[in-house]
Amino acid sequence: MTNDLLAAARARASAPDFTRVFDDPVETEGPLSGLTVAVKDLFDVRGYPTGAGTAPDPARAPAQDDAVAVARLRAAGAGLIGHANMTEYAYSGLGLNPHHGTPLTPLIEGAIAGGSTSGGASAVARGVADIALGTDTGGSARIPAAFCGLYGFKPTADSISRKGSVPLSHSLDSVGVMTRDPALLRPVLNVLRDRPLAAADIPGTVIVPQNFGLDGVDPQIMEAFEAALEVLAQGGITIRRLSMRFFDDYSALPVWQFSAVESRCHHGAAFADHRDRLDPRVASRMARADETDAPGYARTLIARQALVNEATRIFADAPIVLPTVATLPPQLADLSDDATYDRVNLLALRNTSLGNVIDGCSVSLPLTELPGAGLMITAPRGHDATVLGMAEVLADQL
Amino acid sequence: MTNDLLAAARARASAPDFTRVFDDPVETEGPLSGLTVAVKDLFDVRGYPTGAGTAPDPARAPAQDDAVAVARLRAAGAGLIGHANMTEYAYSGLGLNPHHGTPLTPLIEGAIAGGSTSGGASAVARGVADIALGTDTGGSARIPAAFCGLYGFKPTADSISRKGSVPLSHSLDSVGVMTRDPALLRPVLNVLRDRPLAAADIPGTVIVPQNFGLDGVDPQIMEAFEAALEVLAQGGITIRRLSMRFFDDYSALPVWQFSAVESRCHHGAAFADHRDRLDPRVASRMARADETDAPGYARTLIARQALVNEATRIFADAPIVLPTVATLPPQLADLSDDATYDRVNLLALRNTSLGNVIDGCSVSLPLTELPGAGLMITAPRGHDATVLGMAEVLADQL
Repeated sequence: MTNDLLAAARARASAPDFTRVFDDPVETEGPLSGLTVAVKDLFDVRGYPTGAGTAPDPARAPAQDDAVAVARLRAAGAGLIGHANMTEYAYSGLGLNPHHGTPLTPLIEGAIAGGSTSGGASAVARGVADIALGTDTGGSARIPAAFCGLYGFKPTADSISRKGSVPLSHSLDSVGVMTRDPALLRPVLNVLRDRPLAAADIPGTVIVPQNFGLDGVDPQIMEAFEAALEVLAQGGITIRRLSMRFFDDYSALPVWQFSAVESRCHHGAAFADHRDRLDPRVASRMARADETDAPGYARTLIARQALVNEATRIFADAPIVLPTVATLPPQLADLSDDATYDRVNLLALRNTSLGNVIDGCSVSLPLTELPGAGLMITAPRGHDATVLGMAEVLADQL
Repeated sequence: MTNDLLAAARARASAPDFTRVFDDPVETEGPLSGLTVAVKDLFDVRGYPTGAGTAPDPARAPAQDDAVAVARLRAAGAGLIGHANMTEYAYSGLGLNPHHGTPLTPLIEGAIAGGSTSGGASAVARGVADIALGTDTGGSARIPAAFCGLYGFKPTADSISRKGSVPLSHSLDSVGVMTRDPALLRPVLNVLRDRPLAAADIPGTVIVPQNFGLDGVDPQIMEAFEAALEVLAQGGITIRRLSMRFFDDYSALPVWQFSAVESRCHHGAAFADHRDRLDPRVASRMARADETDAPGYARTLIARQALVNEATRIFADAPIVLPTVATLPPQLADLSDDATYDRVNLLALRNTSLGNVIDGCSVSLPLTELPGAGLMITAPRGHDATVLGMAEVLADQL
């Protein structure tokens, strides 16, 4: 029966959401039996090559072993549909891919699914998969969750192994999960984690920054966001609207250096040897590694650690609440111009990147009244149970 | 009485071992009452400027607060003699300083004290101070300990706060301590640490690498080293002479990048604005930051972390034993030539740097039969009690 479901899902899996459909059966029963997974093309799946969204290369060898996250989902009985499309090397928040096509959100005609976990988000939103296994380096699981009306969870980075996945920025990378059904997040995370999540522990206070994350937010999103804050307040949560020095310090960090420098650290050979085969918009971002030097990058690492320490202290009892993305899903046709793409991409990543830089955890919940908009709750490292618990409690209410 | 002792010590404190003598009294009694400290010129001492071995600068402001390590020694009743000489920015293992003169070891006529904690080592060896508070980024407390016949301890980096000290390489820096009396190490470390050290736990096995650390060792040192191993063996410790892949991986790491890149990260303004006022041999090392780029440095950080993880696993029950330095203290007069200096400096740092790269702890004990030679015991992070315990047990026997 599980394999029948899987076969049906695979029959519906197609480009541009999937770059490859698997053909091996489910072999075990477990807590995720009967559920199907779209696996981002940067996780190793034994027997299939891992493309990481790059141009097809027939010479690429199949993976010998499953990535740890894949092995855990497989052992829990989940059915793996195929490798899902993504931005090349996961390097953008919009999910455009010139090699494999660009997944669209089913919510708005002609609008993109968001990225970088684009294919997984679209597949889950369309009901082809139940779960998208993705990553989140600056919002790659939360931006597409918002754009596609899903729940997107970015765990504390070291709570879920990334072994067997292709890195973008090892400083900011984490595994990410997307689901349609909020009740699925907990069992999926518990399968992926070493230790199960604690019961929900809802904080009494949340912080809405006044000097970060609200500039340039679409007025419709702002309205939906305020309505969501009202739901939180009615639930007894105090909303503190604060201008904090922390966010000024955060905004001064050259966050772009992490993916630029570290992608060149991992994919420097591809950049040097066949830049012409890379997505020009990815290659131009990788090229920015040359805009800093080693001491500059070292300074950025130090400044980031100071922000991690500060955030861990000041947000321990009061998560940060913001719109996930400042804009509704843009039309693919509007992104053909590089300058527009750069601006929209940067704005898409702005709010979500905070959770990665502070080494924290974060969730995006769909704001159901406004398709394509999300509410994001971000907490310091290790507060995954708080963030998940809030998502579970709020899921019916937004 | 304590202040009389301190006054007497201060009266004996002179250049080139000291760059500055303090004049404030001991104000408290404590576990280190009656003991005097030479404070490396890179620790803040309230009321005095911190020079870090650079050229004198009358415009330099006095420190507002003690460094954490200084404050702890002061609160424990120790008498602070003055700021002790060092290599500029602590950037070498030999201790030469063109601005303040070069401390010599009292053991061998005309030979250097070693560095970078040169003045402190010489002061302790001459009986001017009981304790040298220093640092150790690649051997800066252990090389001068060997050259001056002292005990030199490099703790696990994060076990003793470096707050209020001038960094060289934040990845490899640690506080370091030198004493004549091995019985002083434990009380001093306990004052400096947050938690006291556990009782000694002597391992049953030590490892003598066959593919690292023994090339080019002075034959006299090799003989004294073998005699020391015989003492360990007679004490019931198994000596395993092993060629390990770990040491080949270690030797492939471009360790020079840490101090080059990170010194430029911290002292880049001095390098850019008045390189002509720096020790040319320090400036030329800082210039090497330009020999890597940010992705290259990022790769080095990753490779280093893999070595930390591997060392933590494979040396947990069996510390590494080596000669501290491959050579006896060189004559200052022989180091006027840059090529000789570079070669001798690199060889001096070779064995000791291992403990810093693996984020471990390490001690150098004097080999009393051969003045200027040391035995080094190195263990992974957190095994400070083992390393100290071995030093205490072996102190009477070597």
